[in-house]
Amino acid sequence: MSFRAIEWKNETSTLRLVDQKLLPHTTRFVDLTTADAVAAAIADMTVRGAPAIGVAAAFGMVMTARQGPPKPLDDMQKSMQRADATLRASRPTAVNLFWALDRMQRAWSVANTPEDVVDVTVKTALDIEAEDIEVNRAISRHAMQVVPEGEAVFFHHCNTGSLATVDLGTALGIIRTAHESGRKVMAYLDETRPRLQGSKLSSFELMQYGVPHAIVVDGASAHIMRTRKVDLVVVGCDRVAANGDTANKIGTYNLALAARDNGVPFYVAAPSSTIDLSTPDGDAIEIEERDGREITEINGVAIAPTGAPTVNPAFDVTPARLISGIITEFGIILPPFAFNLEAILTVAR
Amino acid sequence: MSFRAIEWKNETSTLRLVDQKLLPHTTRFVDLTTADAVAAAIADMTVRGAPAIGVAAAFGMVMTARQGPPKPLDDMQKSMQRADATLRASRPTAVNLFWALDRMQRAWSVANTPEDVVDVTVKTALDIEAEDIEVNRAISRHAMQVVPEGEAVFFHHCNTGSLATVDLGTALGIIRTAHESGRKVMAYLDETRPRLQGSKLSSFELMQYGVPHAIVVDGASAHIMRTRKVDLVVVGCDRVAANGDTANKIGTYNLALAARDNGVPFYVAAPSSTIDLSTPDGDAIEIEERDGREITEINGVAIAPTGAPTVNPAFDVTPARLISGIITEFGIILPPFAFNLEAILTVAR
Repeated sequence: MSFRAIEWKNETSTLRLVDQKLLPHTTRFVDLTTADAVAAAIADMTVRGAPAIGVAAAFGMVMTARQGPPKPLDDMQKSMQRADATLRASRPTAVNLFWALDRMQRAWSVANTPEDVVDVTVKTALDIEAEDIEVNRAISRHAMQVVPEGEAVFFHHCNTGSLATVDLGTALGIIRTAHESGRKVMAYLDETRPRLQGSKLSSFELMQYGVPHAIVVDGASAHIMRTRKVDLVVVGCDRVAANGDTANKIGTYNLALAARDNGVPFYVAAPSSTIDLSTPDGDAIEIEERDGREITEINGVAIAPTGAPTVNPAFDVTPARLISGIITEFGIILPPFAFNLEAILTVAR
Repeated sequence: MSFRAIEWKNETSTLRLVDQKLLPHTTRFVDLTTADAVAAAIADMTVRGAPAIGVAAAFGMVMTARQGPPKPLDDMQKSMQRADATLRASRPTAVNLFWALDRMQRAWSVANTPEDVVDVTVKTALDIEAEDIEVNRAISRHAMQVVPEGEAVFFHHCNTGSLATVDLGTALGIIRTAHESGRKVMAYLDETRPRLQGSKLSSFELMQYGVPHAIVVDGASAHIMRTRKVDLVVVGCDRVAANGDTANKIGTYNLALAARDNGVPFYVAAPSSTIDLSTPDGDAIEIEERDGREITEINGVAIAPTGAPTVNPAFDVTPARLISGIITEFGIILPPFAFNLEAILTVAR
């Protein structure tokens, strides 16, 4: 990619985001300087992708720490608490947001001076940003174990590339890495209704990297797998529960069923920050419902009768039983997830 | 509905179609007077829905029989053959088109005079039109056996209502009939990408009938069934093979997998004209591939990068093993379909 989706300018405490609502036809950047603005950008999906929103939220806390004239520690902690609450309320499903804010809080809440608050906040946010790139590289490296040498045909949902992370990406990073490692890659991309991240973002990225691919409608996945060679499905995730149930962009559960029915392995690419051992299973994950106009309008043009009722869950939960493996920065975790996730993460963390 | 999707004016040999590409926001009628125009209207989906295109094709043959100054029988038969070939080439998957043209051909090909050609052609086309309504009523009547009394929550794909048939419809006719019979009906409608027949047509119809419903994206079906009460799925079909494998609008196979994984019965509403015992199984059904711009553009606005590659199958095949029952005008046919379809149709026909 010729730009980063998310870029921190430390001298000015400014977060520069590419407005992902306008891609692929318009590349516009927005500069944010307050936690409120970051929370709004997460809520309206100017920035999206579980890892990217975690990083954006962390920098939102840095903006708060540095904001205004010097304050007593008490006042500062209160501002930090308010910003933390605002950012937490921006989107409910992806756990990276909460993970990043928890990690920031562990740093700033024990700082002893206002200067300390600023210092630990900046350091922790920069660490989170840097680690995201390393984690994604490790995920791609481990994934190569399950990607066929020679020809490798992928199926992918939503966008999980550079646009969803600080760089490289999770599932789309695997596809890109396979391509760059010399494999003969082909990728089918679910267009991913309602917001079309597959068409608008993943196809845009793969065109830039020169990776052969084809956009298909979400309903076509089972048919494609029945009639064409598909080696594996790779998807990202917004939260993996302790038992392996995985919340991800709406349509992932359907895709997993298509894969299972056609004997295609289904892998979830998950930074360990997305694995939430405190959530016992998928039923405990709050699923965000979004405005029905995402379904009834496209680019402001009505595609359904005026006033047509909708139900618009932004995510679904893929049952652990449909998942072949969870690819983390520590390696590929295999079933039984209820045992292996906790065991491996406890050792690795 | 305040209008019919397809209306034959016998005095002028004119077929009046509502242009379904423009619904729900524009209700424009087109008047067709030649078989070529009918074939073009089928190909570009001005008229769509397996039963409706069968009826339209039949009237296309009537137009040909009546066209121009009186001709010798030989010349007339040649014109009929040309029109038949043109209409057959308009869309490959739905068998009703071929069924209707076969039935017309059995009539006109044995006529002894030019006047006879006209007479049998008109009579047969009017029979096909009238029977479509009766068949749909019978399908809805039989379906009530498997629709819960009291509250009945449906899941539906594409459009199978009055717009897809001469009147009432198949699967959507069942939903409407359940509502009119006093059941407390709710229907989830797949929007049905790429052409959005669920949003644009089925929601439009159900709003007119006052049937409570909600449009959902195609990828949401498994999640909806996991988290909400859904009693049964009803879909139409474009061709049912002898073993029960069913070709229908792309996304049907995914919906059937969602239903199976959540224990929801999955019913196919099929006029017996859609059941093709000469097609042994789903692999033998030709699946139409359509222009990728159906995926990359909506109402002429690009929603993917310029030049993005696509794969756009218009239909898929739902394996018979995922189907709970096939609802025909003769009753509900249950598995094993490979045996029951032939046995029941042979007796009933």
